[in-house]
Amino acid sequence: MRLKHVKNAEIFVERSPYVLLDPEKYKGRYEEVFKNTNPIYIEIGMGKGKFVIENAKKYPHINFIGIEKYDSVLLRAIQKLEDENLPNLRLIRMDAISIDQIFNQEIDLIYLNFSDPWPKDRHAKRRLSSFSFLQKYDKICKSKKHIIMKTDNRHLFEYSVCSFTDYGYHIKDISLDLYKDIYLDNIATEYEQKFHNQGYPIYRIEVEKK
Amino acid sequence: MRLKHVKNAEIFVERSPYVLLDPEKYKGRYEEVFKNTNPIYIEIGMGKGKFVIENAKKYPHINFIGIEKYDSVLLRAIQKLEDENLPNLRLIRMDAISIDQIFNQEIDLIYLNFSDPWPKDRHAKRRLSSFSFLQKYDKICKSKKHIIMKTDNRHLFEYSVCSFTDYGYHIKDISLDLYKDIYLDNIATEYEQKFHNQGYPIYRIEVEKK
Repeated sequence: MRLKHVKNAEIFVERSPYVLLDPEKYKGRYEEVFKNTNPIYIEIGMGKGKFVIENAKKYPHINFIGIEKYDSVLLRAIQKLEDENLPNLRLIRMDAISIDQIFNQEIDLIYLNFSDPWPKDRHAKRRLSSFSFLQKYDKICKSKKHIIMKTDNRHLFEYSVCSFTDYGYHIKDISLDLYKDIYLDNIATEYEQKFHNQGYPIYRIEVEKK
Repeated sequence: MRLKHVKNAEIFVERSPYVLLDPEKYKGRYEEVFKNTNPIYIEIGMGKGKFVIENAKKYPHINFIGIEKYDSVLLRAIQKLEDENLPNLRLIRMDAISIDQIFNQEIDLIYLNFSDPWPKDRHAKRRLSSFSFLQKYDKICKSKKHIIMKTDNRHLFEYSVCSFTDYGYHIKDISLDLYKDIYLDNIATEYEQKFHNQGYPIYRIEVEKK
């Protein structure tokens, strides 16, 4: 994501009722945050929030948590939420590397949308589908692990298909050109709209592991 | 493959010294055919033979067997071989469905190039990467199973990625756009050249199983 610094973004972020400022203290207790035991779906790297917000509106009986590292980006999501009332949505500002510090076997589904491809081999570990992240996901997910990834980045996708299956995930669904297939429930991210409009294929994979 | 009937094709096929007419009798004994113990690579659905012939020329210490169902197509390969002397190449005319009747744990590598996609769900079993074919490959391959597939057909490729990994294959390599990556050793089939020239991406996957 190209970052534009936004002055005082952190002040707006910290004031938003959607933002959980000390997520560590809810580890294993997100039922208390949402006041129900509905499933919890998270998007790691939510960017400007279109995807997670539209999902939260469409599926009120699922709890959504969007995670984003940068205040300037998170601010865009908060601005979209100004006139909304979505009790099933929370946002967390953090680096994904610490994800296993804030959740404990309570996540039902992980969305990885248009993640940073980290194209250099020596940065492969930073990709959100790397072995070391999959280990973290084992800790934060319920007994069944379930991941849906979308990306326009071919090399990230090729890497991820190998990484998921090497780790023991079963491929539930794969599309190498999402917009030529029928995904009636698809909700596009900001990036996805942009790259699809430019004519690039969007790749999607859905994997599961017990 | 669009088939043009060629008159008397079977006569030319049966006369060719490259064609093994009773392959069942060599089951488990292909060392006798090639008079050596070099590895054996097969191409199931060789079409007009460009791929398997170029491989046989390039790698004299590997034995190649091209398998094709139709006389009219096989004839094109035989015509290409008229002025060649390739002791490491044989061709077999047969339906792939019977492949486990002619080999027994002696194949080192299987090439599936631009196989018939059998797009209808009810024909999925006929795809060369279906569960029932993978069972056959278990019988014909040595202890390590090794398959390389190329295709321009997206749905066949998506199906195959799932089928291989569900069956226990490990993905050694995958490319969703072969001609944008570096495969110095790539040998194109007739189809591959045609579809690549028309601007379609060529998909490639290499899988292994112990």
